[in-house]
Amino acid sequence: MKIAIIGGVAAGTSAAAKARRNNKEAEIVIFERDKDISYAGCGLPYYISEVIEGRNKVIINEPESFSEKYGVEVKTKHEVLEIDSENKSLKYKSLKTNNLATYNYDKLIIATGASPIMPPIPGYELDNVVPLRTVSDADKIKRIIYEQNPQKAVIVGAGLIGLEMAESFKESGLEVGVIEKLPHVLPILDNDMSEIVEDHLREKNVDLNLNDGVSEFKGSNQVEKVVTESGKEIKADLVLLSIGVKPNVKLAKEAGIDLGETGAIAINEKMETSKKDIYAAGDCAESKDLITDNPVWVPLGSTANKQGRTAGENVTGGDARHKGILKTGITKIFDLTVSRTGLSASEARENGFEVEEVKIKGVDHAGYYPGLHELHLKGIFDKNTNKIIGAAVIGENGADKRIDVLSTAIYSGLTANDLFQIDLAYAPPYSTPKDAAAVLGMVAEKKLK
Amino acid sequence: MKIAIIGGVAAGTSAAAKARRNNKEAEIVIFERDKDISYAGCGLPYYISEVIEGRNKVIINEPESFSEKYGVEVKTKHEVLEIDSENKSLKYKSLKTNNLATYNYDKLIIATGASPIMPPIPGYELDNVVPLRTVSDADKIKRIIYEQNPQKAVIVGAGLIGLEMAESFKESGLEVGVIEKLPHVLPILDNDMSEIVEDHLREKNVDLNLNDGVSEFKGSNQVEKVVTESGKEIKADLVLLSIGVKPNVKLAKEAGIDLGETGAIAINEKMETSKKDIYAAGDCAESKDLITDNPVWVPLGSTANKQGRTAGENVTGGDARHKGILKTGITKIFDLTVSRTGLSASEARENGFEVEEVKIKGVDHAGYYPGLHELHLKGIFDKNTNKIIGAAVIGENGADKRIDVLSTAIYSGLTANDLFQIDLAYAPPYSTPKDAAAVLGMVAEKKLK
Repeated sequence: MKIAIIGGVAAGTSAAAKARRNNKEAEIVIFERDKDISYAGCGLPYYISEVIEGRNKVIINEPESFSEKYGVEVKTKHEVLEIDSENKSLKYKSLKTNNLATYNYDKLIIATGASPIMPPIPGYELDNVVPLRTVSDADKIKRIIYEQNPQKAVIVGAGLIGLEMAESFKESGLEVGVIEKLPHVLPILDNDMSEIVEDHLREKNVDLNLNDGVSEFKGSNQVEKVVTESGKEIKADLVLLSIGVKPNVKLAKEAGIDLGETGAIAINEKMETSKKDIYAAGDCAESKDLITDNPVWVPLGSTANKQGRTAGENVTGGDARHKGILKTGITKIFDLTVSRTGLSASEARENGFEVEEVKIKGVDHAGYYPGLHELHLKGIFDKNTNKIIGAAVIGENGADKRIDVLSTAIYSGLTANDLFQIDLAYAPPYSTPKDAAAVLGMVAEKKLK
Repeated sequence: MKIAIIGGVAAGTSAAAKARRNNKEAEIVIFERDKDISYAGCGLPYYISEVIEGRNKVIINEPESFSEKYGVEVKTKHEVLEIDSENKSLKYKSLKTNNLATYNYDKLIIATGASPIMPPIPGYELDNVVPLRTVSDADKIKRIIYEQNPQKAVIVGAGLIGLEMAESFKESGLEVGVIEKLPHVLPILDNDMSEIVEDHLREKNVDLNLNDGVSEFKGSNQVEKVVTESGKEIKADLVLLSIGVKPNVKLAKEAGIDLGETGAIAINEKMETSKKDIYAAGDCAESKDLITDNPVWVPLGSTANKQGRTAGENVTGGDARHKGILKTGITKIFDLTVSRTGLSASEARENGFEVEEVKIKGVDHAGYYPGLHELHLKGIFDKNTNKIIGAAVIGENGADKRIDVLSTAIYSGLTANDLFQIDLAYAPPYSTPKDAAAVLGMVAEKKLK
């Protein structure tokens, strides 16, 4: 039994570890283009700002230690060039020696991940215009900060990574500007929730440029300024391009494996692709929206881990499923925790739901107990069923708890009234007698009547 | 329309506030024996230790301000002596003037709460042997601490209040001993989880005396020592009696209202008692266990608030329900958050479940992000359905989140596999890619196979 895995970050290593736990005998080989495997992509902004100290902290497993721990052959700096699904073989190349070789598999897992979109904006090839995806990318940003002492960073794209890097750059002592083509930051949120984040970013002296795109990067060798579509010229010693990522599907596509309508690899709940004995998992693969049942592509570490584990189980004869996602996301942006799950109001309407939007201000715990923080909660309810189908929670403390309760509620098909009924834990340091999530349900129930 | 409410703490004031919001015209009168209403019973340990500064902080509403805010007549220091359900009237007495009077109601809500059990142990009438239930009780303990400078407090009973007071007394600079008749602290937990708490208490230099009862309090006027059943003599300048509480049901019983098998007032989901137009809510009333459907009596502020609100809704013509509880409880004991929900393993077995107990050690967030804390999770699963029916979570950070997720899961009837599927929020400061609650589900699923 020979199991090949292409890609060794979250999904690939989860798959390998699970496969090995299930099958002590199988030959398992990971092919990875990069020099690192098993790193914490989500930790990179904190590695750059040195909130996390040391490169070894974001490398969960070194190739050698992973190989030893799991009895898996780890071929870093090896690129797979071709999948031959008929003959069940891979053609691959060593990036060190350029030697070509072939590997015959019984089961294959594609976990090729995603890559930053590098838009062909004039000047994007200038020095110090960088993406952030891999540890090597982070190393490069750190080197620029420590060797060149840049004063001003400009972030293009106000998604999760972009805003986490706004905080990270500030932590490193840089001035920070953000340029976002859309009218609001974090398009995963409804506008009213994004505005809370925008106010906070401005409080933290982040120069927000919304509704504006980049028309050119200027500089001699190194970037010096960013020219926006509205004609602004913004000084920049360092530019982070974080307008998004795209799934790495070239190999799969060339092998005749079906892509889904999202452009990522189509898979079923067992992580099976359209080709026999070929599975896909992680950022290169689709998932299913648990509310709409539509295929979605939302590349996140949590999903990659679960999909990887599911694929690892199934290539060793198991029958595991990953049923789908709620596109749950959370991020720390300066003092705020910003989180969402399920459908936003606009997504819900696009999907044909009759929507009741409910917004409340709550608190994280009893008002008389020290360290009180405000919470902004928004719930999206289906007017026909009274079920909660989406939520966003923002606050300085306790947002992560409420979003997880609401994710669990949405997963379970709970209604507004159920949110009142759930017996959530109350003591003064943790909650209020009627928790903010319960209050959201109470207010929703009243509006839905 | 005249609404009478007996008792003005959590349930009574919740009921009054809700009734007023629904009906602007009704006459609403609260009768309260004590001088305070609407106080935060759960905050009293923190008021004593001055983590919460000032008496006004634990009084959520003064009688006057509550009266004004809600247009409710608040009769403090008035004791209801008799309920005449035939004639729908109350006989009551002013505790200031001893005047007797009668009040005719259309709807009555009994929210008489619970009282500490004061066991007839020889010497229990000595000075400085005190319970903790009301703000006046807390005032008395504070006075003893600040006027007499006691060195050693002994707590009889290692339930929630007892252990919260162990921390509180330590914060006030006292040595602390605890005497518990049962072999373990916190009988709401299985023994293996209680042991984690016991280790922590010992680390904090709390002198734990388990499996031992009190045979006598000794002293001249004031308590000086506690003699235990095993013959120990323990120095004590102050003794807190916290062996439990009993529901205040005398009035209800004398009025012919049915009590349940737990000894508290029997009610249905609408908070209706056996007598027409008489409702009960809060610590004097039963609730229903959502898993076993059995009546249970677990007096907690969160339930009191919800039951009070439900009664307030229904006396004004509404049709609200409070479906029941999972006996969810949480407490801060020094650095630990200790929490539980649903059935413990022993309760589950007593109720005829075939039980799979699953214990894991998890962490609160990504290992490489600063401030990592261990979490102990225990899940109780029904072997026949794979459903989670109980859980306990203990740790220095993030236990409150996991217990609320697990409460929601139990409420929703989720299985071990569902715990893996829920799309919980992941980012390094908040969680791991597979959250501890998901890992609990994964381990359980494997054991259940």
